[in-house]
Amino acid sequence: MTQVANIETTKIGWIGTGVMGTGMCRNLINAGYSVTVFSRTKEKSQPLIELGAVWADSPREVAQQSDVIFSIVGMPEDVRQITLNPETGVLAGCKAGNIIVDMTTSEPKLAIEIAAEANKREIASVDAPVSGGDIGASSGTLSIMVGGDANAVAFIGPCLEVMGKTIVHQGEPGTGQHTKMVNQILVAAGMVGVCESLLYASRAGLDLDTVLKSVSSGAAGSWALSNLAPRIVEGDFEPGFFVDHFVKDLGIAVAEADKAGLELPGLSLARDLYQRVQADGDGSCGTQALQKALAKMSGLDWPA
Amino acid sequence: MTQVANIETTKIGWIGTGVMGTGMCRNLINAGYSVTVFSRTKEKSQPLIELGAVWADSPREVAQQSDVIFSIVGMPEDVRQITLNPETGVLAGCKAGNIIVDMTTSEPKLAIEIAAEANKREIASVDAPVSGGDIGASSGTLSIMVGGDANAVAFIGPCLEVMGKTIVHQGEPGTGQHTKMVNQILVAAGMVGVCESLLYASRAGLDLDTVLKSVSSGAAGSWALSNLAPRIVEGDFEPGFFVDHFVKDLGIAVAEADKAGLELPGLSLARDLYQRVQADGDGSCGTQALQKALAKMSGLDWPA
Repeated sequence: MTQVANIETTKIGWIGTGVMGTGMCRNLINAGYSVTVFSRTKEKSQPLIELGAVWADSPREVAQQSDVIFSIVGMPEDVRQITLNPETGVLAGCKAGNIIVDMTTSEPKLAIEIAAEANKREIASVDAPVSGGDIGASSGTLSIMVGGDANAVAFIGPCLEVMGKTIVHQGEPGTGQHTKMVNQILVAAGMVGVCESLLYASRAGLDLDTVLKSVSSGAAGSWALSNLAPRIVEGDFEPGFFVDHFVKDLGIAVAEADKAGLELPGLSLARDLYQRVQADGDGSCGTQALQKALAKMSGLDWPA
Repeated sequence: MTQVANIETTKIGWIGTGVMGTGMCRNLINAGYSVTVFSRTKEKSQPLIELGAVWADSPREVAQQSDVIFSIVGMPEDVRQITLNPETGVLAGCKAGNIIVDMTTSEPKLAIEIAAEANKREIASVDAPVSGGDIGASSGTLSIMVGGDANAVAFIGPCLEVMGKTIVHQGEPGTGQHTKMVNQILVAAGMVGVCESLLYASRAGLDLDTVLKSVSSGAAGSWALSNLAPRIVEGDFEPGFFVDHFVKDLGIAVAEADKAGLELPGLSLARDLYQRVQADGDGSCGTQALQKALAKMSGLDWPA
């Protein structure tokens, strides 16, 4: 029988306290886990410290105090740095039997590389990127896509259940990240469809709210259409999920597809379009800001 | 107060008895309406004749026997022919006060042209394309996107309610067709996303059913993912909706977008890809057959 993480005895480390990380770590603290925390900018950990988390001065020091070390940071380079840096990284502070869990959306090949490094030291490595945005992070309803050794995944199950609602073990190291890429390919195509269809509808002189009544519940229906199209109609481009992060994710997906010899023209198009959104200065808007860039390509403004 | 169609007194004409038309007309007959029917191939009307529909030898003769004349045929040219042909067309047989309702997915500009011709003769014209496939047609659960004069739309409301579940009046003539184009732009982008994401997942060595558990219920979720991805995983390309019909629809959407000065690169890409599916000989498969063409572009087979 596989052991599982226990609130009494399992010490948690947490690295990265952006919007996502803060919400997820808060749920662990509220569930009763002891947490040691590190973030590049210490002030960002302050809300968690006030809830009882203990500060450490580096990822390495976090690991020295912990059994299971979670991370959710920005770019793949950041994951590499916090994990593999020989002076300050997590692995430098780990003991045999520890489990490291990176929840950043990052490169599948990096997840595989880290798992191999960790295994040399009898440490288990799990990749567990998430979907569900800041709301899912704070409410504990994320979808968590998990790759890694089955025993390690079973051990951290109780922790993941505090953070997510849909938790699926996909297979060996890297499969969590690959599954997240699948998710982002779907999201990207969906956003292109939502934005192009609304642009068409607007130009055809249709009433957009009335159009959404016709198309939302049938074969054209999607999460994006139900949740983001109404914001686009209102001209609300506030971030649920940042364009800058999405461009990073799509870049990883394009690179992986290239490496695998796959021609995915819809993905390539979506990446190009989102780079335009960035170039237009909307990188810190939500992904629905694609609507503005798309309208601009036809010489139009949005809202019209 | 607007009059509405009455089962006792409103005589229905029906033109076009393909898979969709047969299911829809059967629901009208079963509801109690008297129906006169015409189809290019008489045998296809036989099941409706057996239910009580009366055969007529041309669209014109259908109109001579009817108050409200519905049509659902193949291409815009067919709509033009059955409606406007001076010898055999519906308008040639109509009386002032009649209502003609074309439910074919066709060109918005043709719907506008027909409405103008009809109005000259004090006939109302409604465009009312549908979404929901053969299952929606036979079960009376279609989404019906309606354009045309409000009084005429109100009059035929009871008939539409027999055929559909989501019935939304979008505005003047042509707006029903424009709304259907919005629907198809969404469907096309969604299918590109579903097929590319499954190809990526397969090539990454993921278990496809397990991947779908992770991605189906969150921000990547859609009708297509829930309903067509499982068929693609099984290698089931049986038609719910024919590729040939979808290529027609996307061609209309591309032409309308061009005319409106819109650059819709996702729509253009989807049209190109679906033309490849046709060129591969899969025009009579369901739209999910895009998966095969996409795999082929990367030198792969599907199922792998």
